[in-house]
Amino acid sequence: MTEPSVFLNRVIRELSRLPGVGKKSAARIAFHLLRQSGSQVQDLVQSIIDLKENILTCAVCSGISDSQICSICSDPVRDRSILCLVEGARDLLTIEATGEFKGLYHVISGLISPLDGIGPADLNLKSLMERLGREKFDEVIIALNPTIEGEATTLYLAGLMEPFNINVTRIAHGLPVGSDMEYVDSATIAKSIEGRVRV
Amino acid sequence: MTEPSVFLNRVIRELSRLPGVGKKSAARIAFHLLRQSGSQVQDLVQSIIDLKENILTCAVCSGISDSQICSICSDPVRDRSILCLVEGARDLLTIEATGEFKGLYHVISGLISPLDGIGPADLNLKSLMERLGREKFDEVIIALNPTIEGEATTLYLAGLMEPFNINVTRIAHGLPVGSDMEYVDSATIAKSIEGRVRV
Repeated sequence: MTEPSVFLNRVIRELSRLPGVGKKSAARIAFHLLRQSGSQVQDLVQSIIDLKENILTCAVCSGISDSQICSICSDPVRDRSILCLVEGARDLLTIEATGEFKGLYHVISGLISPLDGIGPADLNLKSLMERLGREKFDEVIIALNPTIEGEATTLYLAGLMEPFNINVTRIAHGLPVGSDMEYVDSATIAKSIEGRVRV
Repeated sequence: MTEPSVFLNRVIRELSRLPGVGKKSAARIAFHLLRQSGSQVQDLVQSIIDLKENILTCAVCSGISDSQICSICSDPVRDRSILCLVEGARDLLTIEATGEFKGLYHVISGLISPLDGIGPADLNLKSLMERLGREKFDEVIIALNPTIEGEATTLYLAGLMEPFNINVTRIAHGLPVGSDMEYVDSATIAKSIEGRVRV
C-alpha cells in the first residue's frame, strides 16, 4: 500500500483530531479543501488564526468575548436583576440562541466531579461570590446539565448562595418538546412528574 | 439575543461550510480549538496551507501527488500489466488502503451523467486513450460506484476500450461483507445472484 501524498496524510491526521471527525470524514474534508479556491481556504484558515489570537475571557462573567468585558455584560438593556449560572461558554451561547433569557450570565467553568478529582475549588466560584456581593440579583437560575455532576454542583451552589438571601432556581427537567413518552427514559419521566406545574 | 464574539461566529460559519459539519459540530470544533495550545492549532492550520500549496495532479494517472509523477506510477515494483480505472483520487486511496491491488491506476475524474450535463468529453479520457496506446496492459479493471451513472460510464468505457483488445473487467457487485441478507436491498441481492461464482 503506497501513500501518494504526505501532505494529504498530514492534513487528514490533523483533521481527525477534531471532535466528531473520524478518518473518513477527515479525508472527505481534505478532498473538499483541495477542490475549494485558494481564497476560500484562506478564509477558513484566517478565521481559525483570528479565533486563537483575538478571543478573550470576559472579566465579569468569564464567558468568551472579543473585548475585556463581553457584549452581554456591557449591554445596558439586559435585565441586571437576574443571573444565570452555566457550566461553560458553550452553554451560555446555547441559552442565548433561544432568545428567551434577557438577564446576565456567569460561567462557573466546570462541574464538581469527585471521580475526576474536580472539587469546588477548581470552579470559577470566587468571582461569582464577589459578584453576588457587589451586584444586586433578585434571582439566580442554575442552568447545568441534568447529570449526576450537574445535580451535585446545583445542590452545592444552592447551599453556597444561601447567605445571600437570593431566590435560587434551576431549569426544569422533564420531557423534551416533541418527544414521545414511550421512548423517554424512566428517570426523565419521574422528574417530569416531580416537577409538574399547574395548568 | 447577543452574539458575544464575531471571531467565534466567523470560525463557526467557515467550519460549517465543510462537508458533514453542521452548525452544532462547527461550534463544538471551535470550542475545541479554543482549548488547544497555540502550536496544536498552528499544526492544523499549517497542514491545510501545505495541502493547498503542495499537492499536484500526477501527470500519468491524474491522481493526487506530491511530485510531478506520483509514488504509485513511479514505483518499480507495481504490476504494470493491470490498470484500475477510478472516478476520483479518493476512490484510488480507498482501493489502495485495502492493500489488495498491486497494479496501476487511472483517474477518469467524474462519471457520465446526462442529467447534470456531464458527457464523455468532460472526463479525463484523452489521457487514458493515449496511455492505453503507449503502455501494454493485459487487463483494465473498471472500479466505479454501483450507481446509474457508474453503470452507464462502465458500459461506455468498455465500448471505448474494445479496439485495444484488452481484458476489460469490473469490480463485483453483491452483498457487503458482514451484512445480513434480510437488510440488503433487492437490487443488490439480484446482482449477487447474477454475479454468482463457483465455490
